[in-house]
Amino acid sequence: MVRLKFSIELLYDIADPTCDLIFNIHAARTRYQTVVAEQLALNQPVQPLLYDDAHDGTRHMRLQAHQGQLKLRYDATVDIKHHVESPQRLAEMPISALPQQALPYIYPSRYCQSDRLRKLAAREFGLMMPGYERVRAVQQWVHQRVDFVSGSSNDSTSALDTLIAGTGVCRDFAHLMIGLCRALNLPARFVSGIDYGADPAMGPTDFHAYVEVMLSGRWYLFDPSEVSPPMGLVRIGTGRDAADAAFATVFGAVRTYAPLIVIEAIEDPQQGWTLPHLCADGLSSAHHITPG
Amino acid sequence: MVRLKFSIELLYDIADPTCDLIFNIHAARTRYQTVVAEQLALNQPVQPLLYDDAHDGTRHMRLQAHQGQLKLRYDATVDIKHHVESPQRLAEMPISALPQQALPYIYPSRYCQSDRLRKLAAREFGLMMPGYERVRAVQQWVHQRVDFVSGSSNDSTSALDTLIAGTGVCRDFAHLMIGLCRALNLPARFVSGIDYGADPAMGPTDFHAYVEVMLSGRWYLFDPSEVSPPMGLVRIGTGRDAADAAFATVFGAVRTYAPLIVIEAIEDPQQGWTLPHLCADGLSSAHHITPG
Amino acid sequence: MVRLKFSIELLYDIADPTCDLIFNIHAARTRYQTVVAEQLALNQPVQPLLYDDAHDGTRHMRLQAHQGQLKLRYDATVDIKHHVESPQRLAEMPISALPQQALPYIYPSRYCQSDRLRKLAAREFGLMMPGYERVRAVQQWVHQRVDFVSGSSNDSTSALDTLIAGTGVCRDFAHLMIGLCRALNLPARFVSGIDYGADPAMGPTDFHAYVEVMLSGRWYLFDPSEVSPPMGLVRIGTGRDAADAAFATVFGAVRTYAPLIVIEAIEDPQQGWTLPHLCADGLSSAHHITPG
Amino acid sequence: MVRLKFSIELLYDIADPTCDLIFNIHAARTRYQTVVAEQLALNQPVQPLLYDDAHDGTRHMRLQAHQGQLKLRYDATVDIKHHVESPQRLAEMPISALPQQALPYIYPSRYCQSDRLRKLAAREFGLMMPGYERVRAVQQWVHQRVDFVSGSSNDSTSALDTLIAGTGVCRDFAHLMIGLCRALNLPARFVSGIDYGADPAMGPTDFHAYVEVMLSGRWYLFDPSEVSPPMGLVRIGTGRDAADAAFATVFGAVRTYAPLIVIEAIEDPQQGWTLPHLCADGLSSAHHITPG
Repeated sequence: MVRLKFSIELLYDIADPTCDLIFNIHAARTRYQTVVAEQLALNQPVQPLLYDDAHDGTRHMRLQAHQGQLKLRYDATVDIKHHVESPQRLAEMPISALPQQALPYIYPSRYCQSDRLRKLAAREFGLMMPGYERVRAVQQWVHQRVDFVSGSSNDSTSALDTLIAGTGVCRDFAHLMIGLCRALNLPARFVSGIDYGADPAMGPTDFHAYVEVMLSGRWYLFDPSEVSPPMGLVRIGTGRDAADAAFATVFGAVRTYAPLIVIEAIEDPQQGWTLPHLCADGLSSAHHITPG
Repeated sequence: MVRLKFSIELLYDIADPTCDLIFNIHAARTRYQTVVAEQLALNQPVQPLLYDDAHDGTRHMRLQAHQGQLKLRYDATVDIKHHVESPQRLAEMPISALPQQALPYIYPSRYCQSDRLRKLAAREFGLMMPGYERVRAVQQWVHQRVDFVSGSSNDSTSALDTLIAGTGVCRDFAHLMIGLCRALNLPARFVSGIDYGADPAMGPTDFHAYVEVMLSGRWYLFDPSEVSPPMGLVRIGTGRDAADAAFATVFGAVRTYAPLIVIEAIEDPQQGWTLPHLCADGLSSAHHITPG
Repeated sequence: MVRLKFSIELLYDIADPTCDLIFNIHAARTRYQTVVAEQLALNQPVQPLLYDDAHDGTRHMRLQAHQGQLKLRYDATVDIKHHVESPQRLAEMPISALPQQALPYIYPSRYCQSDRLRKLAAREFGLMMPGYERVRAVQQWVHQRVDFVSGSSNDSTSALDTLIAGTGVCRDFAHLMIGLCRALNLPARFVSGIDYGADPAMGPTDFHAYVEVMLSGRWYLFDPSEVSPPMGLVRIGTGRDAADAAFATVFGAVRTYAPLIVIEAIEDPQQGWTLPHLCADGLSSAHHITPG
Repeated sequence: MVRLKFSIELLYDIADPTCDLIFNIHAARTRYQTVVAEQLALNQPVQPLLYDDAHDGTRHMRLQAHQGQLKLRYDATVDIKHHVESPQRLAEMPISALPQQALPYIYPSRYCQSDRLRKLAAREFGLMMPGYERVRAVQQWVHQRVDFVSGSSNDSTSALDTLIAGTGVCRDFAHLMIGLCRALNLPARFVSGIDYGADPAMGPTDFHAYVEVMLSGRWYLFDPSEVSPPMGLVRIGTGRDAADAAFATVFGAVRTYAPLIVIEAIEDPQQGWTLPHLCADGLSSAHHITPG
């Protein structure tokens, strides 16, 4: 089990009299990720509306802020005990056997134009044996072909752009991997979170984006940017791509500042809390879905 | 009330030993659209899996077909009694007041890149009074700027492409209108169906695509292609865009043929069945969603 | 030497009172391609304006047609005696050593966005030894990754589209190869012509598009679609891409019909006329340019 | 007449042993722009290759720099006496009457995809009376629909991107105007230069990009970004778009710094030197081309 403690500080200058915002900053609640403690502080006297998605554990927050400065601080401690599975036991599933809830994740989405990646996916991965290793091959292919370059992409950069440019940040790696997986008829989705264990040379801790692919009825974690060990990923938002799971979506004229994030892993052998480390097994932190 | 009776015949040549297909061809079941009778016939001894979405009434069907010819015929009779509302009573809603289920429809999607249409939407519609008439203005803007040209677009054509090309078919009109509405922070979604009352000069009856926009807590119908009176639209699939609500998505090597569709309206004043006609009021055929 | 005899018939219905058209249908005149005989017939009493480009031998024809049917027929016999060079003697040139006239062909153009292909080109070909074989490797890479599918592209399809789609026709193969060559700082240009020797299974004889790359101060022929032996290519137009060298550019409302093209090779050992055949040497049919 | 005196300082760090660069920084020599004095200083002992284009007066410079710092300083004094014409005397020309040298500027290019702008151009400008005022309408349309935002675009931004985004810098304004003009069958080209008279609030003096459109056999100046009076534009490079006329194109791994540019207008009534000012007439600084 991994215990991670983190804080997120967000700051906005609201220009309009009021401004709606949607946040994905609460730690998700799933069978494998428990929120031990959490606290939300807002500098404005607004009443946020919190909605927990029963399927994916995401906790969307909406609020209407007033003109002036908006400050949020969210603190949480989570325990994560991944479902672990040996790669050779993980199988790709035919469309006809997928849980209904997985179906939205086989279609193309804003940033993952899988419809246009079918030929490439078939050429690169079509002859491989289906299963966990094939998905790993997709992950490594993306990792090898894309260079992580801060500032090399923007809000409208899609999987096709990243494929051509060969550069991107974590969300771009995720979009390209998702696009390729869906082009192979594999349900794949976007997860946003915070990562523990990234190389400090990569800059200050930031939100992270990674991928889940459904195998044998569960969603397994893959991080094509390989920025941190998947075991160190705190799960926050889930969606088809970054359009759904942005940490903040702002509906108005707002000046935004870089988020300030701090994360630590708490090690305590007596409690069974170990540090996140790389692991060859399949890891899942999402609810198990009953097939149907 | 409108009573519509229709049949859909689909034909495929399956090249692979087996092939998964997902269909959206069943008439949706909503509070305002009742399936009076229906029948599905398949030439292959396969067991389709039918899933009814509780939120939007869509009825997805999956099946795994075998090599050779696959023939489907679906017959249905539906009664539609729209929820009707006077335009001046229909208001746009702030993000903070939207039902949670409407939120997926404010984000950009594969074919509706609303994130890139914000400036255009603001320039063209930003100064108009919010409400039904503004949405009508978006619908008419799309109708005026896009010419209906069969074969002028393909499966990868998006709202941006249509904006530039100025030509398209019904799904392209729908995508552009959806993109513009979302760029105005209006939840908008894609509905597929069959239309009664199209000009026969437009060719044989085909699947149709139109738009729903949420106003005052309900989804109201708009048809930017103006191919037929909204009152004559049989509701089938619902989604973010055509990626979700295609009448058929095929996962394999398949030869497809043009669908064969026949529809008639049954007029009987004694039963209260009238023919579809144009109407200035807002029409809704979707479930009412309790705000949250 | 190769002697080729061909005819081109073009047919248009002009809707406007007058309509300007630009044609590239005359056989080019270069040091290596001689027009032995030619004849142009027009059904309208219009005076075409013919312009011969001294640099590349292209012969542009402009005319203003009248309402109604426009019929052109061009017949020509050409002798082609390529400049032939052994691959190992052909070197890539530094930008500073290029003839000034080659410079326009190192920049990106409408359909060849070499600026966005630099990373891919560097990854795939950057470590190869510069020279003819590297260019051959680019040609083969394009040939292997793109499938020739009639009707799979349209007038706005670019090298990036073809890279992603993996399908195209001859002009798409040419655009992708040109884009990759320019991304390697190699001058590359688009040539339109007619090919002798294509597989009849590919359909009736049509206009063809291929590529020239500058090596050791000359333009050498490459046909990434490998539709026919380069020795069987009659040179017509030259340009940065298909925008410059289309066989016809129409400035008005016109109905166009498929061109009707017939070509034959005349074999006569006594005259030294041989049939076109595949050949491992570098072939050039363009003027030699004095470096500067 | 206008006398302008300016200097350009460029600085690069060359990482490779050698690196080819192409510059467009020399003041063009045309019938209407005279280079009174000029001086080029380089900190490396390299021999630049200077090529004067007889058609458009552009003076391309190529050089191969060595590893380390490369510094260029170019100083020049130019006299500009525009050809001035009354708008009502300027006519659009049919394709059949254009000088041959104008033809490359009617085709789409890398950043000006006029082939995809035909419908929009026809809708917005198709019913206007042809002539100078129609071109002015295109210029004003672009000016009104695009906001000047530094850093809002990048090297791969094209006219279509700018049309959708509604933001850009001077080169983006120019590309969109060129694309629309060509879509109306008007030859239009890209000119790079330096502008005198820009609002100091726009930041330090920089290279500028503007447009020339052929009317009545001459190229007339239009500045869709309206950053400065056209009379204050020193002509440097000419091309189809920014791909051809960039002030520097670098073929290697180089760190670039912002150019340092200083310009002044010298007023002396006795010499006939006036300050640049806005003027309602058509201005041309390009060679007159003999029709053919």
